[in-house]
Amino acid sequence: MQPSVLALLNQPSLDREPHVPGAAPFTLVDAREPHLSVLDLGVTRGDGIFESLSVSEGVVHGVDEHLTRLAASAARLDLPAPHLAIWRAAILKVAGLASDGQSAVKAVLTRGVEGDGRPTGWVIGTAAPDHGAARDGLRVVTLDRGYRHDVAETSPWLLVGAKTLSYAAHAAILREAARRGADDAILVSSDGYVLEGTTSSVILRHGSVFVTPESGNLAGTTQARVFEWARSQGFDTNAELVTVPQLDAADAVWLVSSVRLAAPVRELDGRATAVDADLTAGLNAYLLT
Amino acid sequence: MQPSVLALLNQPSLDREPHVPGAAPFTLVDAREPHLSVLDLGVTRGDGIFESLSVSEGVVHGVDEHLTRLAASAARLDLPAPHLAIWRAAILKVAGLASDGQSAVKAVLTRGVEGDGRPTGWVIGTAAPDHGAARDGLRVVTLDRGYRHDVAETSPWLLVGAKTLSYAAHAAILREAARRGADDAILVSSDGYVLEGTTSSVILRHGSVFVTPESGNLAGTTQARVFEWARSQGFDTNAELVTVPQLDAADAVWLVSSVRLAAPVRELDGRATAVDADLTAGLNAYLLT
Repeated sequence: MQPSVLALLNQPSLDREPHVPGAAPFTLVDAREPHLSVLDLGVTRGDGIFESLSVSEGVVHGVDEHLTRLAASAARLDLPAPHLAIWRAAILKVAGLASDGQSAVKAVLTRGVEGDGRPTGWVIGTAAPDHGAARDGLRVVTLDRGYRHDVAETSPWLLVGAKTLSYAAHAAILREAARRGADDAILVSSDGYVLEGTTSSVILRHGSVFVTPESGNLAGTTQARVFEWARSQGFDTNAELVTVPQLDAADAVWLVSSVRLAAPVRELDGRATAVDADLTAGLNAYLLT
Repeated sequence: MQPSVLALLNQPSLDREPHVPGAAPFTLVDAREPHLSVLDLGVTRGDGIFESLSVSEGVVHGVDEHLTRLAASAARLDLPAPHLAIWRAAILKVAGLASDGQSAVKAVLTRGVEGDGRPTGWVIGTAAPDHGAARDGLRVVTLDRGYRHDVAETSPWLLVGAKTLSYAAHAAILREAARRGADDAILVSSDGYVLEGTTSSVILRHGSVFVTPESGNLAGTTQARVFEWARSQGFDTNAELVTVPQLDAADAVWLVSSVRLAAPVRELDGRATAVDADLTAGLNAYLLT
């Protein structure tokens, strides 16, 4: 997976001057060259936010929703409000230059070099990895996330629900899942509620109802589109607290995200779960439009 | 605070080939130039570790202890074992080139560019900020860390006790402390135990005993030196579970770390706490040797 295009933003936030007055809003550069200072708080503290967007044949999915969430994450981290018109232009430019077929665009905003008071922003395009196997079915284990389900409300400084660059624990959770012979993990709160995947939202089907756990999770842009589709197919949809026994008793479970789309769970904590291949195919066809 | 020297490590880990065969173990470069790829997992996932070391007149404090902890953090994150001889040489070189007086050296190891399978490593020297005011006394608030005190044992994949680059929540905790009129925060577990500062260990004095909370915290290199000094002064020392009421009832509280050294707490959640200026001065004189 070679990176194709990188756009460095000259003015990533609304209330800051451009880094270079009079310069273009962004500059296209070779992604393989170094462009980041080791003093950037994005790396020294994981202090920044990101969005991953899916691109099909040059068309970006859900730009508005991702920009809205980028701005919401910025607000939670007290980052300067992103200049969304410039981010949109950079995302569309990078997506348009991306390879044919499926690709992905990632937008990143960091607090910038410590002491400079100016954020750093970039948009990068990559060929999307082949998620075909995931869409056939994932083996998933449940793992403790350590937090109570309501911690986003009681302790907003923990940044639950913001899409930050501080994902070392998520990476460690994926390694633990692999050690247990699984492809991914579903995170569970310390008080026993289902939260989300490592980089995805959880969706369950109980009979004629699609359910997503309501627990201060990151607002899922793909989850919202899945619910649109489910309602168009005559299902009811609901966001509610979900316990692990309720997860075990579901008729179907998916992990959904922008680039991997809807991946059905075929094994949960070592027990086989039913996969509805037709429903999954219909869902993914909708998500690709 | 201008960065002085940056060393990029050619072979940051033991079991990987050098990036450039036959090249010097590290290269000195201008820290203000970009040297990092936006594809480095250190920034895209906060997936890496660090150590901060204090330097007085070119002499680095506790190199062995920091290298030991760097290796321990690497093991917790399943990073390749750092090539400690090369890290030591780079740290000593950067420290020797640092400005006169007090400076700081930071060593960073990341998982490297995704897909490359090679970690990235660097050592950077900076002039140390003036911590004189902190050493006179800090206003501190207690804030919920969200985790139970024993989560490092029950859920090691959360990486509690490893010094990772994923510090966005710690930065948010410092901003919340500032909003409450404080200089720093003491983190408290969801079950009511005192954990640590945002970038420091907590030390209490109850009469003739120095106490540090025992709760799966990062092993404090400075905390260990404080205990050495306390025993040399005839105090007893102990690591034990500490509740918030026990913190409130302490005769003295310090936040201790490598670069800021021992900073006494002069106000805890809005209530004045006693500061022993003589004891603090003796302690900091020892830490500077």
